[in-house]
Amino acid sequence: MPQDIHDKLIMLAKRRGFLYPSFDIYGGVAGFYDYGPLGSQLKNNIETLWRSFYLLNDNCIEVHTPTITLYEVLDASGHVEEFTDLTVDCTTCKQSFKVEDIVEEGATVEQSVKNHRVRCPVCGATLEGAHPVNLMFSTTIGIGKTRDAFLRPETAQGIFTNFHFLYRYAREKLPFGVIQVGRGYRNEVSPRQGMIRLREFSMAEAEIFFDPQDKTHPLFKKVQENKLYLFDNIKEWKVSLKEAVNKKLINNQALAYYMYLTQAFLFAAGVDPKKFRFRKHADNELAHYATECWDAELYSNRFGWIECVGIADRSAYDLNAHITASGTDMYALRKFDNPKTVTITKIIPKMDVLGPKFKGNAGKIKQLLEAMEVSKGTKKITITLDGNKIDIPKDCYDITEVKEKKAGEKFVPHVIEPSYGIDRILYCILEQSYHEGKKKGEEYRILKLSPVIAPIKVGVLPLISDDRLTKLAKEIDEELRAAGIATYYDDGGTIGRRYARMDEAGTPFCITIDHESLKDGTVTIRERDTTKQIRKEKGELAHYLRGQIS
Amino acid sequence: MPQDIHDKLIMLAKRRGFLYPSFDIYGGVAGFYDYGPLGSQLKNNIETLWRSFYLLNDNCIEVHTPTITLYEVLDASGHVEEFTDLTVDCTTCKQSFKVEDIVEEGATVEQSVKNHRVRCPVCGATLEGAHPVNLMFSTTIGIGKTRDAFLRPETAQGIFTNFHFLYRYAREKLPFGVIQVGRGYRNEVSPRQGMIRLREFSMAEAEIFFDPQDKTHPLFKKVQENKLYLFDNIKEWKVSLKEAVNKKLINNQALAYYMYLTQAFLFAAGVDPKKFRFRKHADNELAHYATECWDAELYSNRFGWIECVGIADRSAYDLNAHITASGTDMYALRKFDNPKTVTITKIIPKMDVLGPKFKGNAGKIKQLLEAMEVSKGTKKITITLDGNKIDIPKDCYDITEVKEKKAGEKFVPHVIEPSYGIDRILYCILEQSYHEGKKKGEEYRILKLSPVIAPIKVGVLPLISDDRLTKLAKEIDEELRAAGIATYYDDGGTIGRRYARMDEAGTPFCITIDHESLKDGTVTIRERDTTKQIRKEKGELAHYLRGQIS
Repeated sequence: MPQDIHDKLIMLAKRRGFLYPSFDIYGGVAGFYDYGPLGSQLKNNIETLWRSFYLLNDNCIEVHTPTITLYEVLDASGHVEEFTDLTVDCTTCKQSFKVEDIVEEGATVEQSVKNHRVRCPVCGATLEGAHPVNLMFSTTIGIGKTRDAFLRPETAQGIFTNFHFLYRYAREKLPFGVIQVGRGYRNEVSPRQGMIRLREFSMAEAEIFFDPQDKTHPLFKKVQENKLYLFDNIKEWKVSLKEAVNKKLINNQALAYYMYLTQAFLFAAGVDPKKFRFRKHADNELAHYATECWDAELYSNRFGWIECVGIADRSAYDLNAHITASGTDMYALRKFDNPKTVTITKIIPKMDVLGPKFKGNAGKIKQLLEAMEVSKGTKKITITLDGNKIDIPKDCYDITEVKEKKAGEKFVPHVIEPSYGIDRILYCILEQSYHEGKKKGEEYRILKLSPVIAPIKVGVLPLISDDRLTKLAKEIDEELRAAGIATYYDDGGTIGRRYARMDEAGTPFCITIDHESLKDGTVTIRERDTTKQIRKEKGELAHYLRGQIS
Repeated sequence: MPQDIHDKLIMLAKRRGFLYPSFDIYGGVAGFYDYGPLGSQLKNNIETLWRSFYLLNDNCIEVHTPTITLYEVLDASGHVEEFTDLTVDCTTCKQSFKVEDIVEEGATVEQSVKNHRVRCPVCGATLEGAHPVNLMFSTTIGIGKTRDAFLRPETAQGIFTNFHFLYRYAREKLPFGVIQVGRGYRNEVSPRQGMIRLREFSMAEAEIFFDPQDKTHPLFKKVQENKLYLFDNIKEWKVSLKEAVNKKLINNQALAYYMYLTQAFLFAAGVDPKKFRFRKHADNELAHYATECWDAELYSNRFGWIECVGIADRSAYDLNAHITASGTDMYALRKFDNPKTVTITKIIPKMDVLGPKFKGNAGKIKQLLEAMEVSKGTKKITITLDGNKIDIPKDCYDITEVKEKKAGEKFVPHVIEPSYGIDRILYCILEQSYHEGKKKGEEYRILKLSPVIAPIKVGVLPLISDDRLTKLAKEIDEELRAAGIATYYDDGGTIGRRYARMDEAGTPFCITIDHESLKDGTVTIRERDTTKQIRKEKGELAHYLRGQIS
C-alpha cells in the first residue's frame, strides 16, 4: 500500500519518540495522543515561543485556571446549550456518528438529514433521528452533596470569570490582554483524524479586552506595512495591515494586529508561508459567540487546509452572559475628561428591613441593589445571588432621584480572541518539515525543524569510540547542558548513522569531536540542512549555538 | 479577629493578583484555586527551574500524556481499588466527611470508628457506617458505545504505560529517568485547607527506572559529601549522602541522590533551610505501591509541617501490574558479558491453526505466546489481549525444548519516584517569603521571593511624570522585555508607593529613570531586600540583570 506523508511521518514520530498512541497497551482509544520525549520538547518549545510573543512582545498577563469547570459557568457561556454536534445512532451497529462526517461528498448536512440520505458507514443502514449531542466531558465534584461540572471546552472562560480581578490588576486601563495555555476537551463523537481531531488537546488562548468605541491597538503603527496572507473563500492575496483595515477587509486594527502576531509567530515556528493563509468565516460558520472570525489555516498533505488558529471578535458576548447570570459587576469605566454632575435614579436599600429578612446575604444584596440600573417606574426588582434568582420585596428599598458627580460611564468591554490549537500546529509543522530522499541507496529522512523549536538543539558525537574522545565529548555535552542548551550525546554506531538519527530527530546541529580536538580544542559543527561543516573552539560553542537557536 | 500569616498572605495574594478563588462569581467551590497574573508567572518559573534540574542537570526525558485516563490503566495500577478515603455521611446534614478530618484530636481513625466516636462537625450527630470512597473524578469517553475513564490521580501512569517505547528511546540502557509536569486530580471529600488540599492540582513527577541489582546513580559521587536534612519522626539531623547510604539510613544511592536533587531544587527556589526537612514514612503510612518513602516537608505557619514532595521506591509494582493486565512485553534486558547457550522450553505457535481461529488477532497472540515462560508440564495457556483473557486451545501450539543463544536475561525494572506538589511548594514559598513591618507609620509588606522565581524581575519607574522621562523609561522597558526579562512599567503615584507595590509583588529589582538619566544614560537599580541603590549604564542593564536572576 503506498503511504502518504502522514503515514510515513506517524511511523517516524513513533520510532523516534515524538508521538505515541495513548493507552496503546490497552487497545488504544481514538482522539488521544501521547507526546514522547522529542514531541514533549517540541511542544514545550512551541509554547515557550508563543508565550514570548504574547507575554514579552505584546505585554499580556497570564492566568492558570482549573480544567474542571462548574456547570454554572458553562451554562452562562452558552456551552451547555450550543456546544453540540448533530449526531445519529445506528441501531444495528450500536455506534454513533457525527452527521457531518458521514454525509455523501458534496452534500450538506441539512439536505442529507431532510432527504433521509444519511447512511451508516459500517453497515449501510439509513440512519434517522439526527439530534444534537453535547460535546463536553461531564463529571461531578464532591461526594454526597455534589456539584455538576464539565472539563473545559476552552480555556477562555477561566479568563472571563476573573475579568473584574484582572481589570483591577491592569489598573483599570484598556486595552489589556490575558492569556491561558493548557488542556481543552471535546468529547468527539467519532474522531478519525489522528492529531487533528483530539478529544483532549492543548490550546493557547488570548483574550484582549477593548473599549468597543476604540478598537485601535498601540502597536499597530509599528507593523502596519507588513503583508497578511488572506483568502476570502475565492482567491488568495497579500495585503498590508493598513490597507486591510482602511478598506474594511478586516473590521478593526485590533483584529488585524492579532492576525499579524499570529502570522509572525507561525513563521517564526517554521511554518512554510506557501502553506499558510487566513480564511474568513462565512456568516453561517461563526461560533455562537463570534461576530467576525478569521482562521489561520495550515496546509497538510493528508488533510488539506486545516484550521489551526481562530481569531474571533467575541464582542461583549461572554462578559454580558456572566454579568447576567452571576450579578457580578464586570463593567469597565470610560472616564470623562471632567467629572459630570448628573441626575440619576437610584435604589436606596433599607438595611433595617433587609437585615432581618436576608440575614448573612443582606450585605451582598445591598451591594447588588446599589449597582442596579433602575428608572422611577421600576415595579419589580429581581436579583441573582450565587446563581439563584431572588425577588426583593418593595419594603426593602426606596427609589429616588439624586444628583451625583460621575467620573465616567460604565460599559462592557469587547474581546478579540486569538485561539491556537497547539497539537494541530505541531502536527502541521512536523508534516511541512518532513523531507525524504535516498542516501547511498537507502531511504533517508530529515525533519527540517526550525532551530528555535527543535527538541534537541545539538547532537554531541565523538568521531570514534576512543576513551579520550568520549571523555572530552561528555565534558562538552555537560557544559552545553549547564548553559541551558538541550543536547543529545551519542557514541553508538558509525558517524553516518548517528548523523541520520539526528536528522530524523530534527536536530539542527551536530558537534563532532575528533583527534584534532584533543590537540587544539576545536570541534566540527555540522549544519543539518546544508550539511556544511565549520570548526570552532570548544569554549565558543555555547555562545555560538545560542545565537543560532534563538 | 487577629489574622495569621496565612490570612494576610491570601489577602495580599488576591489584591496583587497571585491567587483568586475559583468560580468566585458563582459562589466558589472548595478545593479549586485560580492563578492570577503574578501567580501564573511564579508557577511557570518554578516549573521551569524544576525542569532545568531534571532535564538539563539529570538528563531525564519528558512525556505529556492525557489527563483523561482509561479505566483499564487505573484498574491495573490499583487506583480503582486503593485510591480511597474512609468517609462518613451525616443523614441529618446531608454532608459527607473524611473520617480523618473529623476525629477528636489525638484519636486514631481506627479507634474512633470502633468506639462510635465520630461526630458530625456541623450538627454533632454520631456518625456510623464509615466506608471507603474512591477519590478519582470519573467521566465517559464517546457517545453511545462509551469507555469508562477517570481524571488521572497522578501523572506517573502515563509514563509506566509507555515504558516499552521509552526504553527503546533510551537505547535500552538503564538507569534513565522520565518526567511529566501537569495537572492531577483528587476528588477530596471535604477539602478545607486552601492551597494545601486541592481537588485539581499541578504536579511534577519523575520516574527513574533502575536495574534492581544496581541502584547506584552515575552522579552520586559528585554530590555525596553534601548534607541532607533528615527527620526520623523523633529527631532532626544533618548527614552526608555518603554516610546516609553507608549506614543504611537511606536504602540506596538512587533514593539518596534524588533526595539531594529535591533539596537542591527547593533551596534554589528560595525555601528557607530552617523550614525544611525530609521525613521518613512509617510502614503504615506507605502508599499501596511504595516500599520506602521520604517526604520533603516545608514548614507553614498555619498548617505546620506539610508534605510537598514524596520520594518513593515504587519497586517493580507498576510495571508488573501493567505487564500482567495488558500482556505487553515491558521487560528490560540485563546483558551477559558473553552470550550464553541455554536450553529453554518454548511455545511454538502454529499459525495455520491460529490464523483461521483468531483472524486479525492471530499475529498479536503469536507474539504473546512466544514471549511467555512455560515449562514442559504446562497444561493450560491463557493470555490477556486488550484486557480480555483468552484461553488458547492445545492444537494452536507445540511446547518443545530448544537450545538458544541468549544475549542476556529479562527483568522488570525498579522505579524511584520523586513526586512534587507544585501548588503546595508555591504556597509554602509565598508564606516563607512574607515579611511585614511598618514604614512611616503604615503597614508595609515585602515578599522576599528568590530572583530566579520572582514573577516580575524588574520594575521600570520614571522618577516623576515628565514626558522625557516616561519616554526613556518605556524604551528601557521594551528593550528589557525584548531581551527576555519580565518587567513591569509603572508611572502612577509617588515613587515610594511604586516601590511598595513592587515589594508586595516580590519584584527583586527596580530601575528608576531620573533627570541624570537623560544627561548621561545611567539609571538607578534598587535591590528589594537591602534597598541598596547603584547606578548603571542603561546599555549594561540586560546583561547585569540576567546575571542576577539566573
